[in-house]
Amino acid sequence: SSQMDLHNQGRAKFLEFPFVSAPHRALMVNLLSKVEDRLGSQLLPCTLPLDVQHCQNESGTSQASLHIRSGLQSSPVDFILGSWLHCKLPTGAALNITSLIAYLNLSTDAPNFVAELIQSSPTSLILLLDLPPRKDLVLYPDYLQTFYEDSQLDTHRQMLQKLPEVQPYVSSSLYLRSLFSPTRIMIRIETEEGRMEEILKDHIEPVAVEVLGFWLDHCACGGGREVKEEEKAYLKKRDELVKKKSIEIDLGSNLPKLFGPELAERVMGAINDVYNL
Amino acid sequence: SSQMDLHNQGRAKFLEFPFVSAPHRALMVNLLSKVEDRLGSQLLPCTLPLDVQHCQNESGTSQASLHIRSGLQSSPVDFILGSWLHCKLPTGAALNITSLIAYLNLSTDAPNFVAELIQSSPTSLILLLDLPPRKDLVLYPDYLQTFYEDSQLDTHRQMLQKLPEVQPYVSSSLYLRSLFSPTRIMIRIETEEGRMEEILKDHIEPVAVEVLGFWLDHCACGGGREVKEEEKAYLKKRDELVKKKSIEIDLGSNLPKLFGPELAERVMGAINDVYNL
Repeated sequence: SSQMDLHNQGRAKFLEFPFVSAPHRALMVNLLSKVEDRLGSQLLPCTLPLDVQHCQNESGTSQASLHIRSGLQSSPVDFILGSWLHCKLPTGAALNITSLIAYLNLSTDAPNFVAELIQSSPTSLILLLDLPPRKDLVLYPDYLQTFYEDSQLDTHRQMLQKLPEVQPYVSSSLYLRSLFSPTRIMIRIETEEGRMEEILKDHIEPVAVEVLGFWLDHCACGGGREVKEEEKAYLKKRDELVKKKSIEIDLGSNLPKLFGPELAERVMGAINDVYNL
Repeated sequence: SSQMDLHNQGRAKFLEFPFVSAPHRALMVNLLSKVEDRLGSQLLPCTLPLDVQHCQNESGTSQASLHIRSGLQSSPVDFILGSWLHCKLPTGAALNITSLIAYLNLSTDAPNFVAELIQSSPTSLILLLDLPPRKDLVLYPDYLQTFYEDSQLDTHRQMLQKLPEVQPYVSSSLYLRSLFSPTRIMIRIETEEGRMEEILKDHIEPVAVEVLGFWLDHCACGGGREVKEEEKAYLKKRDELVKKKSIEIDLGSNLPKLFGPELAERVMGAINDVYNL
């Protein structure tokens, strides 16, 4: 069908990750494959228009790819969103952001998944890797214990933190800082190009695979976390706010700058549709 | 009256801070004075038994001072709690913890105040300084904006972080990490003794005074944050959980080890009374 063509064509373009290093690309492809292997049968194809799935500005200095798949009615997955963004900076360097995020729906209160790599030069990388909680951890210590303490998620952060090239990264957005879990991996790596590829392959990829594996096993396919009717309104409101604020912070001001107002509006419209906002 | 004697005697002992450096003591005395100047008339005297206000183990290797004052019915202050703890470590070094915390009551949802200095040697200091929020910041972005964004609280953290002796400190307790705000100052300072005193006097004290000043002006005396009846149950439950978990984490296992089970139980009993737990 032409819908599957649209999906396959956009997916192939997305999976090219044409502007990042081989180990960076391998990591992202690995993560998406693992998600597709486990959840693919529950996901609708990506049917965004092709010029939204892959967009660029007139001069070709900014390019982006967007791959979004909503979950079937029967799936606990709300949607998954993979993306990459490339833009040439005035300095001559390039900014490359690749990300894979997954939101669950109201059939469960289990955490979401976020993996994002921000590379502003071949020698500088920011990694965000987390299962953002969907409840207030202060008010729900059982939830904290189940997903973050018993799971030993913090050991991954501790391990990466031991590398001498790794520094903690503090986002300038207080909302993002609030949104992420206490075991979040938010780090900045500064090192020479060859070593960066080594760190991506030997340290970041295994950790990202572990964290995604835990999320697939215990959050997306965990079961047993039915949300009581009286808690659904709370969860719904919180989920919606998170989606709204995340778009605002990530895309709100950047997209028009990178792609001009018209294309930006089309992309935002497509995202808002999937996000149900 | 004998009640005022009890208060004055315990307060004098508390303010001695006999085991920490002069600038460390000056900082703590300064913070308490500022709280007393602004809020003293709203606070009841500390009427804990003297052997709870100042306690020590049989061998004298552990000593602690506890100064708690509850707010009057008409005050937004639930209570303030000042404390210091000294214990000789098996290594010959000593651990010294000094803290001042202030909890507000249900007449407002404004943040609490926490300042804690943990010194495990003259050359190593951990500082926790924060206004822990009393609401889920993800669900209440207005609250985040009012108290943490518009207030520019993050600038203090950024300033301290610039000192070469300063490293981020990550608490081993995920609950504490969740409890603290995104502008929390949680840092570890490693430097020689003379420089440590300089950092305390020139950098930490001014920042602590600023943060406390903001809290006094906009939280304890801010007004205008009446809590709606339907939100009171949520706030009450959250406040109680925070108090319960904080005691558990801070004191639960340490107090019996340091002072033996009997004295520990008396101290915990006195604290639980004030905490209304």
